[in-house]
Amino acid sequence: MDRWIKKDLKYNWHPYTQMKDSRKDPPILIERAKGIKLYDNRGKYYYDTISSWWCNVHGHNHPKIKKAIKKQLDSLEHVLFAGFTHKPAIQLAEQLVRIAPGNLSKVFFTDNGSCAVETALKMSFQYWQNLGEKKKTKFISLSHGYHGDTIGSMSISGVDLFNEVFKPLFFKSFKAPSPYCYRCPMGKRRAKCNIECIEPLDDLLKKREHEIAALILEPLIMAAGGMIIYPKEYLKKAAALTKKYNVHLILDEVATGFGRTGKMFASEHARVKPDFMCVSKGITSGYLPLGATLTTREVFQAFWADYEKKKTFYHGHTYTANPLACSTALASLSLFYEENTLRKVVKLIPVFRERLSLFRQLPIVGDVRSIGLVGAMELVKDRRTKVPYGFKDRMGQQIYREGLKNGLLMRPIGSVIYFYLPLCIKENQINFILQRAFNVIKKIGSKALCCR
Amino acid sequence: MDRWIKKDLKYNWHPYTQMKDSRKDPPILIERAKGIKLYDNRGKYYYDTISSWWCNVHGHNHPKIKKAIKKQLDSLEHVLFAGFTHKPAIQLAEQLVRIAPGNLSKVFFTDNGSCAVETALKMSFQYWQNLGEKKKTKFISLSHGYHGDTIGSMSISGVDLFNEVFKPLFFKSFKAPSPYCYRCPMGKRRAKCNIECIEPLDDLLKKREHEIAALILEPLIMAAGGMIIYPKEYLKKAAALTKKYNVHLILDEVATGFGRTGKMFASEHARVKPDFMCVSKGITSGYLPLGATLTTREVFQAFWADYEKKKTFYHGHTYTANPLACSTALASLSLFYEENTLRKVVKLIPVFRERLSLFRQLPIVGDVRSIGLVGAMELVKDRRTKVPYGFKDRMGQQIYREGLKNGLLMRPIGSVIYFYLPLCIKENQINFILQRAFNVIKKIGSKALCCR
Repeated sequence: MDRWIKKDLKYNWHPYTQMKDSRKDPPILIERAKGIKLYDNRGKYYYDTISSWWCNVHGHNHPKIKKAIKKQLDSLEHVLFAGFTHKPAIQLAEQLVRIAPGNLSKVFFTDNGSCAVETALKMSFQYWQNLGEKKKTKFISLSHGYHGDTIGSMSISGVDLFNEVFKPLFFKSFKAPSPYCYRCPMGKRRAKCNIECIEPLDDLLKKREHEIAALILEPLIMAAGGMIIYPKEYLKKAAALTKKYNVHLILDEVATGFGRTGKMFASEHARVKPDFMCVSKGITSGYLPLGATLTTREVFQAFWADYEKKKTFYHGHTYTANPLACSTALASLSLFYEENTLRKVVKLIPVFRERLSLFRQLPIVGDVRSIGLVGAMELVKDRRTKVPYGFKDRMGQQIYREGLKNGLLMRPIGSVIYFYLPLCIKENQINFILQRAFNVIKKIGSKALCCR
Repeated sequence: MDRWIKKDLKYNWHPYTQMKDSRKDPPILIERAKGIKLYDNRGKYYYDTISSWWCNVHGHNHPKIKKAIKKQLDSLEHVLFAGFTHKPAIQLAEQLVRIAPGNLSKVFFTDNGSCAVETALKMSFQYWQNLGEKKKTKFISLSHGYHGDTIGSMSISGVDLFNEVFKPLFFKSFKAPSPYCYRCPMGKRRAKCNIECIEPLDDLLKKREHEIAALILEPLIMAAGGMIIYPKEYLKKAAALTKKYNVHLILDEVATGFGRTGKMFASEHARVKPDFMCVSKGITSGYLPLGATLTTREVFQAFWADYEKKKTFYHGHTYTANPLACSTALASLSLFYEENTLRKVVKLIPVFRERLSLFRQLPIVGDVRSIGLVGAMELVKDRRTKVPYGFKDRMGQQIYREGLKNGLLMRPIGSVIYFYLPLCIKENQINFILQRAFNVIKKIGSKALCCR
């Protein structure tokens, strides 16, 4: 084993990793990256088909982003953001408001997606307290939703594999069934349904509106919950319910924002007007940690009071609005215009969708779904019964290994295989990656089927 | 009002700020910084006496740190840290382990202090679950402790002004009285005491050891709780109790780490061996968001198992171990050696302490305390009764304003005035800053006393 890897295993504890597995499958030492490729210390490269955990947008090692960071380094790397401000944060807040959906007009910066969600939860919670609606203290989320890894953001997440052990630490929240068309909670089929899966949410809100502060959703893609892509009609109806029952709508665009779905924000597909929007990941094109929570003037006003009234939002982090991260984000937003990113993506979407549909040929593939440059498939033991591969089958792990052998970084979620492509990808790269991935899944699938 | 400031107030919601106050006291637009000075858009400068919220170490705009970031930008800005690794993270983990106290040998990277604390809480919690000690699910912290702004880290914090409104969201935890010598919970005086304030903690542990996972402490300085500096004997005794009662000791060195107290980590003063240490802030010398949670081999081993056993630590953030932030931290650690930072600091401490003691002359100053280059004083209405200035007196705010007029960034906590000096500070700068601050406090103090 390489001495660097030995050292890595000696000192580092990697996220979401059973470290015992790392002896057999040691981490790969990446030395450089360029565009959509990651190069290891042996000169081998891997296509970054998941945008390094869904954050890279314009490609690695982009000259214009680098230039922006280097320039900012020469004036101001950081200053506290209470009582002080700086141009990168002002410009970025202005631009975020400009591109944000609905009435979002105020920006609160944080360091990552979990913290952006925590900020929204706390703001929504305190909003109702400041207004004297003391009982509105609970949240609703979806049963396959995922919103982060801090205790607050986990309390409203639904991924049992991650959450189970920590449940005694969570605050109580309510879960509505997910609009999971392939495994419809109402036993319907999408082609003939009327979004009946909204009914449990409606019932829940009807019964508990007086105690609910907010509904939190990932718009259109429940990402960590298994890349479950759901109809925009659900989002529209859910948004309408929040208005009807006077609860906030928090949209968690951490994974879906910045062009992933073919629009700048996923909520644009459904034209909904959230009270809060949380962003991170793609905001800096995957270069530096940054998060932001956008909200409305109405929410902001509920905290605007004489100091003595104790309505202040006492919240923030040391690195809030770090100038280097803000400059990076500004450069990334500029690239959307300079490189016509979204227009190019829109052209690529049909290519990607068509290529992806070919995976239906594989007997192991139970469902294929996509939006924008995000596509996923669910591997099943039996297409008719839809029985999924289980935790112990480790289908994902097998595909991950085989993918790496073939120069593809694919990191499945359980037995859901997905692509979360960098937006700078070219048509021929999509074809190439999906062809290779097809062969990978075919190989592993055949082995699984023949050995049953 | 400057158009940039107008724009700032239009779009930005600042942390820990009553935004209504910002109309009267608008944020200052910082354009560049160098060493320990922040320069605004009018060319005026301010001494950064609080190290930009306790994070700056080697000064702003340091050529060697900038160089390291620029160099890293040319190879790898980011890659996901699951299944992959890179040299900056390996080297940084190795170096952190090398300088860390006791048996800390594994590093888990995160993005900020709150997340570093959440990681420690979750690790400690799951450790006991993995070992089958299912009842050890609760935490103990100090009544003036502060550990972050996410719901989990707030649940074990004790600063009521920040926490009060959010209490319904917290998990239950136990608070022990703080070793707050100026306002001793046991009614003792430090000169004659035997650290009797440890007794309530002992009682709590005795009674509840079977349900306690960990004790979490900020070693020697309860920072956001009011810069309460406490005796190392308390820390020693508390550490001994955690061993005696078989609970983890989590040291939150987010504010105290990286030289602030005159040693690399505050816990070194007491030579205790924690099970977890959380760091952030100074780790990158205040340049980029980064956090880390260090732990022992024993803790790590409790998660080391066959995948199917579900003992994995399913936790992590997108930007975990961001290569740019890790490179920054490596450069900052190198500077400690290259610039002999700690040796210089040790020489400055007596100068600082002596200068600080002069503040006792001011009738408004009730207590003066310091450790390393951190010093604080408590303003009181009456020295004999120690009655503090209240929330509505806004003594801190008055001093903040007057400080700015005099080119000093002082940001008091209530009526506790403090210095959290960058370690690169020079002796003449200490003298200059403390002389000016003296005059500021004298002026505001005289006004307060005469108007009673």
